[in-house]
Amino acid sequence: TPGRVYLVGAGPGDPELLTRKAERVLREADVILHDRLVSPEILALAGPGPERIYAGKQCGDHHVPQGRTEELLIRYARQGLTVVRLKGGDPFIFGRGGEEQDALRAAGIPCEVVPGVTAALGCAAATGIPLTHRDHSRSVLFLTGHDREGRSPDDWAALTKADRTLVVYMGLGPLAGFCDGLRRHGLPDDWPVAVIAEGTTSKQQVVRGTLRDIADRAARAGLPSPALTLIGRVVDAADDTTLAATAAGTAVLTE
Amino acid sequence: TPGRVYLVGAGPGDPELLTRKAERVLREADVILHDRLVSPEILALAGPGPERIYAGKQCGDHHVPQGRTEELLIRYARQGLTVVRLKGGDPFIFGRGGEEQDALRAAGIPCEVVPGVTAALGCAAATGIPLTHRDHSRSVLFLTGHDREGRSPDDWAALTKADRTLVVYMGLGPLAGFCDGLRRHGLPDDWPVAVIAEGTTSKQQVVRGTLRDIADRAARAGLPSPALTLIGRVVDAADDTTLAATAAGTAVLTE
Repeated sequence: TPGRVYLVGAGPGDPELLTRKAERVLREADVILHDRLVSPEILALAGPGPERIYAGKQCGDHHVPQGRTEELLIRYARQGLTVVRLKGGDPFIFGRGGEEQDALRAAGIPCEVVPGVTAALGCAAATGIPLTHRDHSRSVLFLTGHDREGRSPDDWAALTKADRTLVVYMGLGPLAGFCDGLRRHGLPDDWPVAVIAEGTTSKQQVVRGTLRDIADRAARAGLPSPALTLIGRVVDAADDTTLAATAAGTAVLTE
Repeated sequence: TPGRVYLVGAGPGDPELLTRKAERVLREADVILHDRLVSPEILALAGPGPERIYAGKQCGDHHVPQGRTEELLIRYARQGLTVVRLKGGDPFIFGRGGEEQDALRAAGIPCEVVPGVTAALGCAAATGIPLTHRDHSRSVLFLTGHDREGRSPDDWAALTKADRTLVVYMGLGPLAGFCDGLRRHGLPDDWPVAVIAEGTTSKQQVVRGTLRDIADRAARAGLPSPALTLIGRVVDAADDTTLAATAAGTAVLTE
């Protein structure tokens, strides 16, 4: 009988932000295939038993091709093993979980998905920026800066609605062009933006600015990729003391 | 010296989907103010120490006014207590966390936000519906069916983009009107929709249909509110065996 594959979200970075279920499943695994966004501290939660295998990608440079990862999941499951595919954030938010689920289903391998705190929620909590707020934002749009073919967004009107928060999962390379697009399509130059790298970890860095200057500020700060970009009036709902505190690596808001 | 308030996400329903941090903070609390979406099983994780106080609302009928909840948080913190405000899902996704943070900041009370797995992520995992998928969906929009003043969405073009997944946090009352709006603004009658009630719990119910028939199907199934509605091509990325299995209360996908 085949084993089972768990597609597990490891959360935004802080090992305390894994779910209780993710921790249990890690401890029950025979083998864990993890990506680069999963830290050694998180892998340590699995205890000494499971074998760890790196199956990540690094900033678009695919060290392990996606098809190869799927092959490994299927091969281990067919050996009767309990396999955990551990992914940063949540498996179904820009995490390729859907593609891996497709491959497992086609192979007849039982699969269960364990959700995780996606980076947007973790970074929002860690910076005190509410993604929704009845005074400022009625909706939240999660997107990437470009798609598989490298195309920019094609419906800027949806991205420039004043009462909508944008959460952009992308590296810093496309940030300037993305912000220019928002300005060209109607958002003001001084519209608030925050870029967060290594959010929720002790190495968290937050850079705050506007559509006009955020790309320069982020570049000057030397923020690493990947980063998360939050855009909208809610960014101003976190005051400067909050962001100063969180930039120093603490999630405490008002001290 | 004042105490501290933690705004904590309790996740989508399954007690195993709390984060490790949420569990720790619950155990350290002197007092827990919780809403209706937080089950007894989750409150039990706090152990015998903390006092529990109900401060929820029920389907728009505000049993405890929001201002009263904020007063209680401030009063207990000023007594030097460690206070947990425990909310279903994530505090910053349609959870009023931003307003509570504002009130605490104005009162000078230290506040920390602990993110949670919002219902969208929990329900997606439990039904095998990937919110993003490189073949089907480039972005995800989280919204409510109507705003504080009861208004419907005002930019339907953003909601009817074929490669965008919609996640609608609303009761079943507005569902028919919402789906009609999407059809009037260009989505096909047979566009896939899933409605999930009590997602991730043993009482999970999933109803699947199209923009044309989902409201009738959900009504016939007698789904309770609140429910979560997923709309988009990704709904068809979970096959019928998946949904049949999850409707019976299990999150296993391919058996």
